[in-house]
Amino acid sequence: MRQTLFLSVLFLLTIQPSAQTREESIKSIYDQALTNGEVYENLRFLCKEIGSRLSGSPEAAAAVEYTRQLMESYAFDSVYLQPVMVPHWIRGGKDIVRIVNSTKVGTRELNCLALGNAIGTGPGGLTGNVIEVASLAEIDEIGAGLKDKIVFINAGMDPTTINNASAYSSAVVVRAYGASEAGKHGAKAVVIRSITNRQDDIPHTGSLVYKPLMPRIPAFALSANDADLLSDLLDEQTDLSLYLESHGQQLPDVLSYNVVGEIRGTEFPDEIIVVGGHLDSWDVGEGAHDDGAGCMQAIEAARLLNELGLASKRTIRVVMWMNEENGLRGGREYARLAEENNENHIAALESDTGGFRPVGFKSGGTEAQQNQLLGYQEYFEPYGLWRFDERGGGADIGPLKSQGTFVIGLRPDSQRYWIHHHTDVDVFEYVDRRELELGAASMAALLYLLDQDGVD
Amino acid sequence: MRQTLFLSVLFLLTIQPSAQTREESIKSIYDQALTNGEVYENLRFLCKEIGSRLSGSPEAAAAVEYTRQLMESYAFDSVYLQPVMVPHWIRGGKDIVRIVNSTKVGTRELNCLALGNAIGTGPGGLTGNVIEVASLAEIDEIGAGLKDKIVFINAGMDPTTINNASAYSSAVVVRAYGASEAGKHGAKAVVIRSITNRQDDIPHTGSLVYKPLMPRIPAFALSANDADLLSDLLDEQTDLSLYLESHGQQLPDVLSYNVVGEIRGTEFPDEIIVVGGHLDSWDVGEGAHDDGAGCMQAIEAARLLNELGLASKRTIRVVMWMNEENGLRGGREYARLAEENNENHIAALESDTGGFRPVGFKSGGTEAQQNQLLGYQEYFEPYGLWRFDERGGGADIGPLKSQGTFVIGLRPDSQRYWIHHHTDVDVFEYVDRRELELGAASMAALLYLLDQDGVD
Repeated sequence: MRQTLFLSVLFLLTIQPSAQTREESIKSIYDQALTNGEVYENLRFLCKEIGSRLSGSPEAAAAVEYTRQLMESYAFDSVYLQPVMVPHWIRGGKDIVRIVNSTKVGTRELNCLALGNAIGTGPGGLTGNVIEVASLAEIDEIGAGLKDKIVFINAGMDPTTINNASAYSSAVVVRAYGASEAGKHGAKAVVIRSITNRQDDIPHTGSLVYKPLMPRIPAFALSANDADLLSDLLDEQTDLSLYLESHGQQLPDVLSYNVVGEIRGTEFPDEIIVVGGHLDSWDVGEGAHDDGAGCMQAIEAARLLNELGLASKRTIRVVMWMNEENGLRGGREYARLAEENNENHIAALESDTGGFRPVGFKSGGTEAQQNQLLGYQEYFEPYGLWRFDERGGGADIGPLKSQGTFVIGLRPDSQRYWIHHHTDVDVFEYVDRRELELGAASMAALLYLLDQDGVD
Repeated sequence: MRQTLFLSVLFLLTIQPSAQTREESIKSIYDQALTNGEVYENLRFLCKEIGSRLSGSPEAAAAVEYTRQLMESYAFDSVYLQPVMVPHWIRGGKDIVRIVNSTKVGTRELNCLALGNAIGTGPGGLTGNVIEVASLAEIDEIGAGLKDKIVFINAGMDPTTINNASAYSSAVVVRAYGASEAGKHGAKAVVIRSITNRQDDIPHTGSLVYKPLMPRIPAFALSANDADLLSDLLDEQTDLSLYLESHGQQLPDVLSYNVVGEIRGTEFPDEIIVVGGHLDSWDVGEGAHDDGAGCMQAIEAARLLNELGLASKRTIRVVMWMNEENGLRGGREYARLAEENNENHIAALESDTGGFRPVGFKSGGTEAQQNQLLGYQEYFEPYGLWRFDERGGGADIGPLKSQGTFVIGLRPDSQRYWIHHHTDVDVFEYVDRRELELGAASMAALLYLLDQDGVD
């Protein structure tokens, strides 16, 4: 006899959306997400049956097919693939960073991951004397003194910055450009402190970018604890050496796809509201928070609107972008095609900061667009969302901005995000069902309002 | 070379608090909590070295001694124990709820816990036919039809209520009074659906209250999944029977203690601002979120203020209340002594909704007091706290209210709280370090403001 009454009420709401107030429609979205949601089970499948899915990998292909079938199963009006050539970097083997001559600890393996896109040392590895710096600026100060050294850049995220995304943005330049900056002075390799604000044993990988015409050298990230250990040992022993081994390779580009599902609008079908996440992940963990959560939330948001009869006026398009992590090829190709086909993307909503408790939306657009979003805040306050004035959007929807599209990012509370980001522990077990569902419902509610009103 | 500069800056702040603005003082609190916090390690000790600590248990005595020593080690001006007699309920053995005659699943053990304070079935157990009801009201409707039955009350928390604490308050009457309500109609025992909004295999215990002069019968909680299973089986088989076994006993009261630590004020030492949590927990799990987190945050808040030289004008008193879970004897005794000793408690702050990301404070007091709290909101917004208008406080500080004390509760985001509440999985591993630290810092910041201003 459980839940019978509740389901009857939902059914009544479902067949009479036009008689509902906006508040009632939004409540029906949250109620449905929290009682009959499918986002959690869908994410479980993506994480546990497919797993990590770096661009170009077989698992990335599996994720394309899975999400295509999933959207087909939800009877969206059309589901199709958008071909896009993507980079194909592979880790190629086990990464090693080993202290070899410590007077204090002797030989010691450190918790490490080679950075994504990095060249490998090859199977023979390399050994070198280590020099520690605290920033990219210090690399240039030391300059020629780095020749033939392994440069250890010991600069993580500032733990006192409450907005972790902002701390990440400040810190990530070291991961992106450290190898090129040290390489130009003749360094053999770089080892960085992981880009995290947590003090633990977990190394974090992520994209490195080799600058044109500069020497390419191997690059690794250490866990925060091992970065501290290395720093402490260097304080006492300047001739400390590391053995490094990695096997990264950039293989030829591979054909992959953005996966697109569409619910056609009845009044203004040419006005497109896009919602999505990026389907690729790093090759460690399961890409649960980054960004399996966002992908599954985007599909769930469209499913909820469709099922409740609330996606009506405009076209809702769900997109699983490929290759955000090491190329953004999917996001760029999507925007290129939108322009080529003269499509009118009025708004784009992305979830790519983890499946945590939603607290608001961040956005980038005209003042009128920002004000429209601010005007929606009152609808969300009963659900605990209160931040609507932050600037932002999402990497994959960024390329649409130049077409005048109003870009919006779901803003979860991300205090726990940088434990998991780009690691072995970005796995399904650390996603909370209710938080994930609240995020999906919040996205659906915003899509509903944008569908009703269009965008100025 | 790590963090040297940062520590120097902190040191400077520490010795010159008077030159700081309020905003700077508050930032120094958060910075210190996030970089040199001790709350997480202290909670680890309480959870892992002591563990669960039901009133009257040896572990509760260990927790008293641990927190006494901890506050001594922080050199608070005085640390002392407040004697209080507490109830001593023991579970006494393994609880069993077993389906014995299902035509579908045969014999099946269900995930269960006897409710706290409940009498046991005794070692021989009892067997009875089951009847399902959806509410306490339905118990009275059926009345005499419940004689010699096992009454299964299948009513959990409403998952569509976003404020989970409110959903809990509505649902918990079933756990508190179900046994008496069914007992008065001659039922043999009650089995309830766990008071949770999660769908899983985890049973939740918690206090039962036998009403005076009514028959006392055994009482159990089932996991949500097993409640669904039982309900489904009952839909098809009305003669379904359960075997129940439990061993609960109410032993004679035991001498225990509230643990009190005090930092004396220099200007208005007789104006007391109290901060605390409850030291006891249920006998399952480790009482990590409920309420080890709150206890360790209260101690940390006082430690931070003391260390930063920010506890100055008024007296800050830290209290570890004993016996919130099944008696509230500690909270009542504390208030009684405060009155007897003519102490002036101007404000009381409790953390007892888990060590999750803080989003604000809830309070109960005069309009002027509420307005004072609302006036502080701007100081907290940079740290993500925005809810200051909710009514509430805390169980242990409730008895102070009649003395005019302004009662305030830390308000974390508690979407994940009811996974863990009163279960085997309320353990340290599910407490996030950064979220816990932000809560402690927020409490310290509020104490700082109250210490500066007093209370209207």
